[in-house]
Amino acid sequence: MPTVKLVDEQGADPRVKAVYADIKATKGIERVPNFWRALAAHPEHLELVWSRAKAIMKPGKLDLVIKEMIALAVSITNSCKYCINSHTAAAQKLGMTPEQHGELLAVVGLYNQMNKLADALQVEPDILPRTE
Amino acid sequence: MPTVKLVDEQGADPRVKAVYADIKATKGIERVPNFWRALAAHPEHLELVWSRAKAIMKPGKLDLVIKEMIALAVSITNSCKYCINSHTAAAQKLGMTPEQHGELLAVVGLYNQMNKLADALQVEPDILPRTE
Amino acid sequence: MPTVKLVDEQGADPRVKAVYADIKATKGIERVPNFWRALAAHPEHLELVWSRAKAIMKPGKLDLVIKEMIALAVSITNSCKYCINSHTAAAQKLGMTPEQHGELLAVVGLYNQMNKLADALQVEPDILPRTE
Amino acid sequence: MPTVKLVDEQGADPRVKAVYADIKATKGIERVPNFWRALAAHPEHLELVWSRAKAIMKPGKLDLVIKEMIALAVSITNSCKYCINSHTAAAQKLGMTPEQHGELLAVVGLYNQMNKLADALQVEPDILPRTE
Amino acid sequence: MPTVKLVDEQGADPRVKAVYADIKATKGIERVPNFWRALAAHPEHLELVWSRAKAIMKPGKLDLVIKEMIALAVSITNSCKYCINSHTAAAQKLGMTPEQHGELLAVVGLYNQMNKLADALQVEPDILPRTE
Amino acid sequence: MPTVKLVDEQGADPRVKAVYADIKATKGIERVPNFWRALAAHPEHLELVWSRAKAIMKPGKLDLVIKEMIALAVSITNSCKYCINSHTAAAQKLGMTPEQHGELLAVVGLYNQMNKLADALQVEPDILPRTE
Repeated sequence: MPTVKLVDEQGADPRVKAVYADIKATKGIERVPNFWRALAAHPEHLELVWSRAKAIMKPGKLDLVIKEMIALAVSITNSCKYCINSHTAAAQKLGMTPEQHGELLAVVGLYNQMNKLADALQVEPDILPRTE
Repeated sequence: MPTVKLVDEQGADPRVKAVYADIKATKGIERVPNFWRALAAHPEHLELVWSRAKAIMKPGKLDLVIKEMIALAVSITNSCKYCINSHTAAAQKLGMTPEQHGELLAVVGLYNQMNKLADALQVEPDILPRTE
Repeated sequence: MPTVKLVDEQGADPRVKAVYADIKATKGIERVPNFWRALAAHPEHLELVWSRAKAIMKPGKLDLVIKEMIALAVSITNSCKYCINSHTAAAQKLGMTPEQHGELLAVVGLYNQMNKLADALQVEPDILPRTE
Repeated sequence: MPTVKLVDEQGADPRVKAVYADIKATKGIERVPNFWRALAAHPEHLELVWSRAKAIMKPGKLDLVIKEMIALAVSITNSCKYCINSHTAAAQKLGMTPEQHGELLAVVGLYNQMNKLADALQVEPDILPRTE
Repeated sequence: MPTVKLVDEQGADPRVKAVYADIKATKGIERVPNFWRALAAHPEHLELVWSRAKAIMKPGKLDLVIKEMIALAVSITNSCKYCINSHTAAAQKLGMTPEQHGELLAVVGLYNQMNKLADALQVEPDILPRTE
Repeated sequence: MPTVKLVDEQGADPRVKAVYADIKATKGIERVPNFWRALAAHPEHLELVWSRAKAIMKPGKLDLVIKEMIALAVSITNSCKYCINSHTAAAQKLGMTPEQHGELLAVVGLYNQMNKLADALQVEPDILPRTE
């Protein structure tokens, strides 16, 4: 059960209504997802989070499906159940195939293992990134 | 300081030598990275980890640069210093531009925030992935 | 389903009974929460955990509601469902308002993002704490 | 070593300069911290992160020192070295005493333990938060 | 609900059938656990993960029950609900007693606390492991 | 650099001195490790943490070397650098061989991978532990 009361689209604060309308238009969906309806319990925070998510999750130098796949990799590593569901669905809707999903899971599993082995062995960096 | 003794290329166990040669040929590098030289303290484990990493980190339905970017997203979320260095460098070598790096960081930062907000709010899934 | 059998208040080991009575008196509640009833499967561990929790979770140089809010911030960052529920409820009982809850969520979300960006960028400390 | 080149105050992009000036004015400091100088490698992301951090980290229904203490609790739970340093220093500057620091550490340590015990025992919630 | 369709034993791809038969023979069980049935949505990945798990989870210089207890300690620290269930059950089947389970929980709880205190205090290593 | 001032053995508060003497006698060491010297900045917390660690880290139904190996598995999963060092050294001192260390690392790596795959796939438990 949510720890706050989900805010219905009807009767909401005008700031909340404006964000809800923008979410639906931007994502091309008809129903505001539960995450945003819960966040709307605190309208100022809803505005901050949505405006930033919208600015980041648009096509750029990375395609949107790649951004969703990165979001899925982060959500799996953080074990966020709601987020794994929503980003798996969103990446599928944007074209992620079952084979790509399988490869993504393999990479995410592999590096969750490798990250911990590197920490356990306490090895020093040998390859430095280019400082852009 | 590493918690095991790094294994030099010279004088190593034949299983270790074979893996080292394969690492250098596969990655097109001249020096075996410290991670593998530490893992070589346990040759059977080295073989298991390398053979699986090699099978996963090849071009497939996802390009190799995308796989490295996913590996970087996982490593940042796990805060693995060695891994962040090596995957930032590897993705750059495969063509990740500074702008793409910036977008990746923005997505990874955003969803580390969103994952925790979703957990805090304990919202129920509203969009189910297609079961492939 | 719990991984151990919850211990009922009736018929429990005398050490368990004593802890249960202290939990109810200290917290001003009538029913021992499930967490403690599960921990009671191992009475010596129950005593160790409860005595330490009691010593820490009393008003001190920080008010108890602040301590519960810190406990909630930790529980969100660890994604512990049971704990998020119980600390949200406990902080509300001690006076945390909806507005304060919203601000706490905003701070916790923000720093889960910032922590990962700082790790990704591998910046060196610039401000050292006073060593008390 | 940082994974991006830190951006100096001199000669920076005008958007970066404006954010730097705002950081110094808002925080009452004379030098832009390394974190922001690294983030400035991607000016649009710098603006997004700073504007949101500024909106959240101001006195509200929670005092600023409490917000910094919550940020410190999150940073410890995430093991972010840079962030632990900077939030310990910031909370001290805002008035956190050594005794309060000790109590905060005790609470953060306690709930990192309790969170994992609750997960291990898989207990069901018994106290539901008020849905605001 | 799983994010992929679980693969039934009947009618599966021959590679999947071979892994399923090996899982049942190796573990002495009659039904393939859900984890493997989900992983089977991607047969190549199933083979990679199973072959490696089989190579590691056999009696060696550490007894199998100790390996299962280590797996349980990792799963608790990662808060993986499915894994906590399956490794608690597996360790019990291999002989872990209720008293040993209680001691394991106490150690895992203690070091989740101590790890975060060590990070918070940023102490430097004083005892270096022998480099084998 | 530590975030608190390490407390020297000479001239310390009597409570701190008593804990220091007990640490050295219990562990058979001549120098108080940095972790405890940092924790001593807050004597009441030092007493609470040490008394509980002492009660848990003694031979019981699990040998002490097994407890140290479990502590090491937790510390690796949490990526705690100081703790990985100290528990690797402590387990070696108690008899952990290089082969056992290698097997432990393999198990810890494997389940950090498996935990995340189980979360990604969102499989339901199929084997329930015995409720003791």
